Amino acid sequence: MPTLYYSPNTRASRVIAQLMLMGKLDQVEVVTVEVPRFDGSGRRDPRNPHPEGKVPFLVTDDGEEVRESAAIMMYLDELFGQPLSPAIGAPGRGAYLSWMAYSGGVLEPVLVAAFSGLDHPALTETFRGMDEVCAVLERGVKDRPFLLGDTVSVADILLASPFQWAPHLMPDTPAIKAWVERVGNSLDGAAIAAYEASAMARLDTLKEA
Amino acid sequence: MPTLYYSPNTRASRVIAQLMLMGKLDQVEVVTVEVPRFDGSGRRDPRNPHPEGKVPFLVTDDGEEVRESAAIMMYLDELFGQPLSPAIGAPGRGAYLSWMAYSGGVLEPVLVAAFSGLDHPALTETFRGMDEVCAVLERGVKDRPFLLGDTVSVADILLASPFQWAPHLMPDTPAIKAWVERVGNSLDGAAIAAYEASAMARLDTLKEA
Repeated sequence: MPTLYYSPNTRASRVIAQLMLMGKLDQVEVVTVEVPRFDGSGRRDPRNPHPEGKVPFLVTDDGEEVRESAAIMMYLDELFGQPLSPAIGAPGRGAYLSWMAYSGGVLEPVLVAAFSGLDHPALTETFRGMDEVCAVLERGVKDRPFLLGDTVSVADILLASPFQWAPHLMPDTPAIKAWVERVGNSLDGAAIAAYEASAMARLDTLKEA
Repeated sequence: MPTLYYSPNTRASRVIAQLMLMGKLDQVEVVTVEVPRFDGSGRRDPRNPHPEGKVPFLVTDDGEEVRESAAIMMYLDELFGQPLSPAIGAPGRGAYLSWMAYSGGVLEPVLVAAFSGLDHPALTETFRGMDEVCAVLERGVKDRPFLLGDTVSVADILLASPFQWAPHLMPDTPAIKAWVERVGNSLDGAAIAAYEASAMARLDTLKEA
């Protein structure tokens, strides 16, 4: 059974959302760990084998270490027969790989810069800014319900997640807002919230112990 | 035949290196385009359909657009039977996905920041810095010739490329230097250089016309 290192209300939450949607949460061992948080709470958890103490982090049955949300979500989707992505050679495969790489390679750096009020020519030349991200996302979802067509995929769960987590970064673009809402409606928000609350309570108990 | 939008001496060069190594350069239509360059030369090329005028960019036979080097390299490797990556479910698959996501998601932002002398807590908290990148790469190659084992993969071509392109960013770590050299030796450096020189001459001719 693969082991997922997770902390509630982090980038790892989307992996829980994916596992729930696939109905496979019981086939992964989830280890809830602490992480340093923006508000100064939390700490690096010695039980977390991630080289930099971050989440999510996955260790496969063969002991292979998988880092970065996109890689972990692709791996878990593949492990369970690709219920949420196009197979190699199938229509949508190129678009899928493109969106998965775009997430960590462009969307994330642009959002981090926007979130931090950081504006530097090296960043905008390399990654561009929110205007370009919005244009790309809008083009991706304006003519179809989800990024790859009619059904939700791993790419939707990954790319919509920052806007679910930080609604103030949500572009004021109707097509994007409607897509983020559709992705949210595809997931079991109540079950995810309950899981996260329970994990947070477990961490608090550990702290008090 | 898929169409690759390429410009010499850019991030697209590694896709040419991959296609040469696979012996498939003649099975992709390469369109050489201009891009704005650091020294102020070049310009956005109206023939390039990339939403931000960058390279590499790939359009598949089905008209799907694939952006980001990692996605394009994975797609082309899959299109030609995965000669340079582990199949789904095979040993090394998790590590492969991890390295491919790490490239755009961590290595690239850290190198861009280092290259630009940019130091900001939002960047280091999210992506960490060169010390962490070096530790990760060193751990990846100190006990094996290539990132996934005994043979060169798409991951090696992608992750070694920044250090081949900007040797002054090369970490002073013997294991990393030796790995970058091994990756270079796996590729046909002379053929790549000749291809790039010819492409650059073609662009210069276009400019004069």
